[in-house]
Amino acid sequence: MARKQGSYADTTGPRVRDAALRLIAQHGFAAVSMRQIAGEVGVQAGALYNYIPDKQSLLFELLDSHMSEVMEAAAQARLSGTPLQRLEGFTRFHIRFHLPRRDAVFLSYMELRNLAPENFGRIAAKRRAYEDRLEMILRDGVADGSFVVDDTRITTLALIAQLTGITNWYDPAGRLTLREIETIYCALVRKSVAA
Amino acid sequence: MARKQGSYADTTGPRVRDAALRLIAQHGFAAVSMRQIAGEVGVQAGALYNYIPDKQSLLFELLDSHMSEVMEAAAQARLSGTPLQRLEGFTRFHIRFHLPRRDAVFLSYMELRNLAPENFGRIAAKRRAYEDRLEMILRDGVADGSFVVDDTRITTLALIAQLTGITNWYDPAGRLTLREIETIYCALVRKSVAA
Repeated sequence: MARKQGSYADTTGPRVRDAALRLIAQHGFAAVSMRQIAGEVGVQAGALYNYIPDKQSLLFELLDSHMSEVMEAAAQARLSGTPLQRLEGFTRFHIRFHLPRRDAVFLSYMELRNLAPENFGRIAAKRRAYEDRLEMILRDGVADGSFVVDDTRITTLALIAQLTGITNWYDPAGRLTLREIETIYCALVRKSVAA
Repeated sequence: MARKQGSYADTTGPRVRDAALRLIAQHGFAAVSMRQIAGEVGVQAGALYNYIPDKQSLLFELLDSHMSEVMEAAAQARLSGTPLQRLEGFTRFHIRFHLPRRDAVFLSYMELRNLAPENFGRIAAKRRAYEDRLEMILRDGVADGSFVVDDTRITTLALIAQLTGITNWYDPAGRLTLREIETIYCALVRKSVAA
């Protein structure tokens, strides 16, 4: 039975995004052409425009869907309990979510420079909303006396940079298992904000 | 009096590197041509090859000179005293050195992918030597009982990511002065490794 247009579109759209993510992470946004992405997916360059109107929309969609995914996954993680338990939950969630998405993390930092101002504003707002999840945990811990933090906003940015940095050096074949690394980071984060 | 060839070369070399750093940070290595760099500096494309044999050598030199500068500056900082005093000295040094060099920091993470394997190995070795300076402080603090650290290597990488991350969001016109930010990070780093 011939595949319907709809089902064809359903698989091609994600394949376009996967190919674009991989190519841009490898070569940089400015160096990757729509033609190159089409070639990687195996469609005519003209057909690509059925899925993505232009490169700027493509970049925005890649960064925006990454931020939407992390927000949705964080909401589903339903962190509960004491501020200390929620902090440990956030730490493990952040590491587990980002480590398998190194290309998307890489783009989210490196290619912000190539977003049009309006698109940049939308990504920045989503990023801020994600950071606010951690900051709320820190505020609650300060409020109930379980944490001592000089500045919850700066501490939020510092902890997120510390955790995301794992994507720069983590090697699955390395000295420590992911579980061991998580435990070391949990201890480090816990001590950073300890009362 | 006409400028001598030597003095001309002395100013053009640094100008080539400055222009290359700026252009690559803005557009990405793969998207920047030798011709574009020559145009930015105001020399003929052919003349550029007197200073830089090819783009790969240029990228290596940019990342290598950045690492040499940080190693030299760290050596000159002559951190001394107790492990805790050295840790605070390192924290302030790292922030002050890297914040005014955001383009170089950006390239040092984003363009590692474009280094030839041998060049990558040389940059990785220098980076490791710099990280070892912090790890030695942590080891000394663990040895004399002033620090408790689960894993000095992982903690080193975590702290460096935390500090370098400031380059992603620091705004000189922001809510806090650089001195205030430094003080917050010093407290955070100190607590992370506290006994």
